[in-house]
Amino acid sequence: MFRSLVLDALKGNPVDRTPIWLMRQAGRYMAEYRAVREGRTFLDLCHDPDLAFEVTMQPIRAYDLDAAIVFADILLVPAAMGMDLSFIPGRGPVFADPIASPEDVARLTVLAPEQSLTGTLTALERLVDALDRPVLGFAGAPFTVACYAIEGQGSKDWVKVRRFMAEYPDAFQALLDKLSDATATWLNAQINAGAHAVQLFDTWAGLLGPQDFRDYALASSKRVFSQISGVPRIYFMRDSGAVLPWLPDTGCDAVGLDWRVSMSTARATLGNMPLQGNLDPMTLFQGEAQIRAAAHRVLAQAGPTGHVFNLGHGIHRFTPPEAVSILVDAVRSFDWRTI
Amino acid sequence: MFRSLVLDALKGNPVDRTPIWLMRQAGRYMAEYRAVREGRTFLDLCHDPDLAFEVTMQPIRAYDLDAAIVFADILLVPAAMGMDLSFIPGRGPVFADPIASPEDVARLTVLAPEQSLTGTLTALERLVDALDRPVLGFAGAPFTVACYAIEGQGSKDWVKVRRFMAEYPDAFQALLDKLSDATATWLNAQINAGAHAVQLFDTWAGLLGPQDFRDYALASSKRVFSQISGVPRIYFMRDSGAVLPWLPDTGCDAVGLDWRVSMSTARATLGNMPLQGNLDPMTLFQGEAQIRAAAHRVLAQAGPTGHVFNLGHGIHRFTPPEAVSILVDAVRSFDWRTI
Repeated sequence: MFRSLVLDALKGNPVDRTPIWLMRQAGRYMAEYRAVREGRTFLDLCHDPDLAFEVTMQPIRAYDLDAAIVFADILLVPAAMGMDLSFIPGRGPVFADPIASPEDVARLTVLAPEQSLTGTLTALERLVDALDRPVLGFAGAPFTVACYAIEGQGSKDWVKVRRFMAEYPDAFQALLDKLSDATATWLNAQINAGAHAVQLFDTWAGLLGPQDFRDYALASSKRVFSQISGVPRIYFMRDSGAVLPWLPDTGCDAVGLDWRVSMSTARATLGNMPLQGNLDPMTLFQGEAQIRAAAHRVLAQAGPTGHVFNLGHGIHRFTPPEAVSILVDAVRSFDWRTI
Repeated sequence: MFRSLVLDALKGNPVDRTPIWLMRQAGRYMAEYRAVREGRTFLDLCHDPDLAFEVTMQPIRAYDLDAAIVFADILLVPAAMGMDLSFIPGRGPVFADPIASPEDVARLTVLAPEQSLTGTLTALERLVDALDRPVLGFAGAPFTVACYAIEGQGSKDWVKVRRFMAEYPDAFQALLDKLSDATATWLNAQINAGAHAVQLFDTWAGLLGPQDFRDYALASSKRVFSQISGVPRIYFMRDSGAVLPWLPDTGCDAVGLDWRVSMSTARATLGNMPLQGNLDPMTLFQGEAQIRAAAHRVLAQAGPTGHVFNLGHGIHRFTPPEAVSILVDAVRSFDWRTI
């Protein structure tokens, strides 16, 4: 029987228990993942459907999580639009040809995922066939992807992005529009391949002031979601405390929270909007009693309906796998009568 | 005549116009600063009273700002407690001997600023004598200083800090207590040297979830402020959107905001509490019209009383000095009758 808990919670339907999946649940904290990764690049795993399938399945087998999320990366989209992406150990994603001028924006090609991103789509189809629970598709939000495309890599202050925005406002808008439409194309391709829900990751929107957030990050994510229908759409933003009331304006069906906002504040601010999150990933470095108490606090504050339990950010690579088992058990065994 | 605008605004008293000073107003964006810095280390400037005096005065001469802030660094305190601090070009502050165990916490000595931090104190005395406007003292908030002391340098995820907190909760609390008391000693020494107001910089408190924020960052800053009296106390926190309503619980007299929170949200949340901030520093990469409009928006949202205009974070080193002149003029010439 299909385990629809995550979809029910994302729609605000009643559930027997709060479902759980974890951002970056397939990753370096698992020995099984490191074994597959050995001798291969991160992009090898993304583009090979067998490997992507395998590492996506690992956390499902190990922890029986309530949803799988296809193994991929938010920067596959700009790479498939012509940018030269590599992942450098110790440094993360690097574009050899960052966007530095309006001409560079014009150079980006239209995304054709059925040609360039077949590894992910094939893996997705197989996951949907193999699993008795939802498989999630995802993409980077346009603003976040634009940050990497312009900066060329991760940054502390993203000053190249901010200067590009100031110097070439029209080209920046054109870049967001292009990325928005490509992202919508990409999410729709994942939905066609069977994805039961999709999530936008807006990791860097939180660096913007409120006006810029509305004009750039929110507007471009809205442009993506307006082209998607038929499955629940989750908007996850890091560092959203200052703009929380506006997040539903993206047109999302559920809001993913990072760990800085208390669930009670989020509920008070967003009412019955389905929420996803938001345990501090660093809680998993603590002992069993603390993990259980922290998980129960999130569950109690979120309430029994319209909540998908998750971390507030990706699992840290040094996380002890036993801590993940404890967390999953804490969420599964939570009893509303005890609060 | 003494220009008390900043102090009046910090106390919520009526003012003729909103005063302005800028975080990191003495810094690399100024050619005058780079000339003094040439051939010297950052710590040379901090410890030499003539150099610290000179670079503190530079932005006052160039922009006639309404307050000076003594040139120093938040990590002078742990350095004066026995830690081995250096500033490495391109890498920032580095401790050669980060705190890795409870024994390392015990090793920190009691702060005696009149012995170890005389450069700053002498510079402060001279600034107070030389200037007709407030001179601000400052320190790092205990949690933020603890982050650097444990991590040994800046970090993206501060995982060493989070693991130390999980593994040695008692030693972490002891570290915060020790740093809190040293910080209070340091701020009181600055007040004795003539500082007219003091600011705590809590740059990294925003990485904590709400419960940890209260237990660690807020509680330790409160412990500092409870030992300070007689001058306005400003609590500046980066990334405070998720915990804004709690900031007055530090015992501060004014809340310094980063650029992510809109001033209207802050006013609605904090009422008449004096506020400081919060223009996005990256606005200074834009053109004159945008800078003026953005500054006027902050002013209008904050209202005419209880507001010290500032950036939401330190000036970026690539900032064009002309943009600072435009900003100062925009704040000075703002006319409430035009909104």
